[in-house]
Amino acid sequence: MNFNLKEAIEVLKRTPQTLDYFLSGLSDSWLQADEGEGTWNAAEVIDHLIECEKTNFIPRIEAILQEGGPHRFPPFDRFAHITNKTDEPFHIRVLEFKNLRAANLEKLQSLVDSEDHFERTGIHPEFGEVKLRELLSTWVVHDLTHISQITRIMAKHYEQDIGHWRQYIRFFNN
Amino acid sequence: MNFNLKEAIEVLKRTPQTLDYFLSGLSDSWLQADEGEGTWNAAEVIDHLIECEKTNFIPRIEAILQEGGPHRFPPFDRFAHITNKTDEPFHIRVLEFKNLRAANLEKLQSLVDSEDHFERTGIHPEFGEVKLRELLSTWVVHDLTHISQITRIMAKHYEQDIGHWRQYIRFFNN
Repeated sequence: MNFNLKEAIEVLKRTPQTLDYFLSGLSDSWLQADEGEGTWNAAEVIDHLIECEKTNFIPRIEAILQEGGPHRFPPFDRFAHITNKTDEPFHIRVLEFKNLRAANLEKLQSLVDSEDHFERTGIHPEFGEVKLRELLSTWVVHDLTHISQITRIMAKHYEQDIGHWRQYIRFFNN
Repeated sequence: MNFNLKEAIEVLKRTPQTLDYFLSGLSDSWLQADEGEGTWNAAEVIDHLIECEKTNFIPRIEAILQEGGPHRFPPFDRFAHITNKTDEPFHIRVLEFKNLRAANLEKLQSLVDSEDHFERTGIHPEFGEVKLRELLSTWVVHDLTHISQITRIMAKHYEQDIGHWRQYIRFFNN
């Protein structure tokens, strides 16, 4: 097991500011690019991360730590941010993500105060019993995969532009 | 063609600061993690980006713009940073990348001053004649693929920790 709460928080606390620095102020051609019909642009990835801060990770952590469990996780809609599209400008959405994440990390640290909590379980709607430490590791990996998704979306915007180099770029050869 | 010099520079100028913010101060368990024998850790990816600033993109741009071409590209060793390993602490390596990139973007803007330059060509050692605009687009995509690589390396550090969620994470299913 590599999971370590202190190290997990190191990544979780950096993600919003990293994305803010990388994306805020970019031209719309970058922020509005997507990978085709039914795929997300970078701004929509931020909206998904916001939705996860609101209705996924902390509510699931709370479900696990609630007495008398294991309890079923509250519902989470992966497409809520598409169903309820926002008109907010990009920098406001990033700011919302930053604020929610900061508040959630405070909450996390007040909820999880001992390693004994790590083995507590909740019931995932698809794969049944899962441990708190698996959920917390997943929160980190979820950040990482969505940062990667954003770089992939942006790279695809230039897929036809790079000519022969395409064969060297993993995004285009998976 | 989506390539646009102004938009390309928007990304190129953000990459070093983004990686600095995301990685500096992380525990060694994150910075020293790799994907197994013969693969790079996050710090080595920065070393590779430094090497590219020194011996890849700008020298190739100069070769393309030199009169009397098309000229062959000067040699580039993709593994130079592994052959000549550095002992510098991580924050010094990131700082070197930031400084080199800033200087190179100034150079780029002094070298490429008209769209007519975009169609000029140089000779790549493997795939022959390539255009300046393809090389410049590749510089951007190269940044993006290495940011993604770093997130993948870090995610793999938790691959065994996330349990059933592994099936949802693209890094682990390619």
